[in-house]
Amino acid sequence: MIYLDNAATTFKKPDIVYDAVMDTLKNNAGNPSRGSNRIALAASRKIFESRQRVAEFFNVKNSDEIIFTKNATEASNLILKGLLEAGDHIIISSLEHNAIYRPLNRLQQELGIELTIVDTEVAKVDFLSQVERAIREETKLLAVTHASNLTGNILPVKDLGELAQQKGIAFLVDAAQSAGTLEVNVEELKADFVIFTGHKGFFGPPGVGGAYINAEFELLPLLEGGSGGNSKQKLNPDLVPDKYESGTLNTPAIAGLGAGIEFINDISLENIREHKQELLKRTTSGLEEIAGLRILDSKISQRRVGIVAFKIEGLESAAIGDLLDKEYEIAVRTGLHCAPLAHQSLDSYDQGAVRISFSYFNTVQEVELFLEAVNEITTKRRY
Amino acid sequence: MIYLDNAATTFKKPDIVYDAVMDTLKNNAGNPSRGSNRIALAASRKIFESRQRVAEFFNVKNSDEIIFTKNATEASNLILKGLLEAGDHIIISSLEHNAIYRPLNRLQQELGIELTIVDTEVAKVDFLSQVERAIREETKLLAVTHASNLTGNILPVKDLGELAQQKGIAFLVDAAQSAGTLEVNVEELKADFVIFTGHKGFFGPPGVGGAYINAEFELLPLLEGGSGGNSKQKLNPDLVPDKYESGTLNTPAIAGLGAGIEFINDISLENIREHKQELLKRTTSGLEEIAGLRILDSKISQRRVGIVAFKIEGLESAAIGDLLDKEYEIAVRTGLHCAPLAHQSLDSYDQGAVRISFSYFNTVQEVELFLEAVNEITTKRRY
Repeated sequence: MIYLDNAATTFKKPDIVYDAVMDTLKNNAGNPSRGSNRIALAASRKIFESRQRVAEFFNVKNSDEIIFTKNATEASNLILKGLLEAGDHIIISSLEHNAIYRPLNRLQQELGIELTIVDTEVAKVDFLSQVERAIREETKLLAVTHASNLTGNILPVKDLGELAQQKGIAFLVDAAQSAGTLEVNVEELKADFVIFTGHKGFFGPPGVGGAYINAEFELLPLLEGGSGGNSKQKLNPDLVPDKYESGTLNTPAIAGLGAGIEFINDISLENIREHKQELLKRTTSGLEEIAGLRILDSKISQRRVGIVAFKIEGLESAAIGDLLDKEYEIAVRTGLHCAPLAHQSLDSYDQGAVRISFSYFNTVQEVELFLEAVNEITTKRRY
Repeated sequence: MIYLDNAATTFKKPDIVYDAVMDTLKNNAGNPSRGSNRIALAASRKIFESRQRVAEFFNVKNSDEIIFTKNATEASNLILKGLLEAGDHIIISSLEHNAIYRPLNRLQQELGIELTIVDTEVAKVDFLSQVERAIREETKLLAVTHASNLTGNILPVKDLGELAQQKGIAFLVDAAQSAGTLEVNVEELKADFVIFTGHKGFFGPPGVGGAYINAEFELLPLLEGGSGGNSKQKLNPDLVPDKYESGTLNTPAIAGLGAGIEFINDISLENIREHKQELLKRTTSGLEEIAGLRILDSKISQRRVGIVAFKIEGLESAAIGDLLDKEYEIAVRTGLHCAPLAHQSLDSYDQGAVRISFSYFNTVQEVELFLEAVNEITTKRRY
């Protein structure tokens, strides 16, 4: 099988990730922060090590500002629901994932927050000035994805971070599709919040994601519950990360995430990026030769992470995906990719798109086989 | 090492659990419900199988009523925050874990719900009549733990379920310490909600827990986000389980949980219970011979799951735990066990307690070694 659905989840993982998960599950998976027996402490150490590694990746000095959650969705809900209050105004881009968009819709209905969606299908300079014009006194948060999960286009997060800082509003970067491929430096980006997931570019297992939360912000927790220490308090302890991490942590997955970042550091982000750029270049030039095929490309930037989405005139995207899977053993993702706003902007809302997405383990040969398959499907119009 | 902290998390797990986690992570961990490629479908199948297995365990006919979360704490927050509204009245027992107590304290502060805590340190008949007297028109929910995570005592959940049904209030059973040891039959218990965790008695890995949620109740989701299907909706789809399971699920852990339940079914709950009863009996009779030692025993019942907590006059519980760990390689849990109300009721709030807790893998020989160690520590008073 050729697996080209790495923006959904990377598959396979590096061997050190499998080993870290299994070693931790078999030998170190006591209940971290619960009691001081050696096996509980071993679990706590695993979590501390991974927290340090994640902090270093994001250039966060105090690793207590790294919060582990079950996935990026929990992280975004934690921040948005913990931060926002009635009357707040929030600005997002039209490339946001439902993990950002839906919690905001809920808060809009429930609390009456106000939401401005700035369309990305304009030149970067126009996008930035539209964001600036959207800022008003009640604006509390600017939240944007670092890279679109649909088109792969990279947003101008550095400019947006500067703008947010100038205007005194909080800045959230959704790094679900960039962490593990692009540098995500919270100081450079002037980000107050970063959302990440473990199981995509970081090569960790499913079951772990998290957030960087600038400790200057005191959010309400999303989950109240046991925290190991401070059991006498009626509410969660104020101390981070405990305040935001109620209940038993997923030690094996957190250890696996740490191992995934170690793998990335060993290869280097630069080598990963270069490899993906090579795959991307071959893919786009190959796809562009196919008549009736349109690559979904956001105007916001020319730069991309390892994602390409396309649609073909007269062919259902779902049918293309099925044929790729059943006749060519190529795994892709079709549909709306939890990004309805992006599909609206890019005129693919009705038909959806076929998305392929790379990991470091994909090869140029796999891309060639994929291109041959799409050519064959398109030529024969077999659906 | 002798591991006697299985109420925190079971360690070791059965081999089929390790195998299920690793096989799923290596071979089936696409992103379930995201796309229809073979590897995403393989993940969906794993989740479906485990959901069925959990549903059967709880005697739930429609497995869509089983919701997977990251741990029991997320499950309790999902139910309590999704169900309760301003003005509601809730009754809990004094043996509740902070996973129940803290979310309710938050809702009390934020929404003004009202909370009655019924003390368990009375005879069962008095407890039941106190619960009944506490019920008023605004009472929406009765929430009790099936078995205390501190003392192991089993609560009269069947009587409470009948009472709740008679009075027309919802009934929640926290099965964190009972699932995998006791039968938890939602029909017999007349439970509308059951909270469980994967990594304790069910022998699954950390990173998965969940809830049974009677589909007649339409809760607000705790997390909004991507749901795979229905991407165009501004909010989560209404369909369960998708409505409550935003973001990428933890497929390997969910598969591991399924394998853990398979292991339990193969041995049979009855054999597990009998084995734990044997260990319990030997433990309590051994501990009772030690001068100055008091077993924390709730008056609510004589029946127990495989948990015993005790304190020793003149000895710090934490010091006993440390000595057991460092000098005897016996892992126990000391402190307050996230159950401050229970420690208040049982007069161990200041000193805390030493808790030991069994899994099916513990042996009588381990209990003997533990008893010898406690005897030695007590006799020498080495602290």
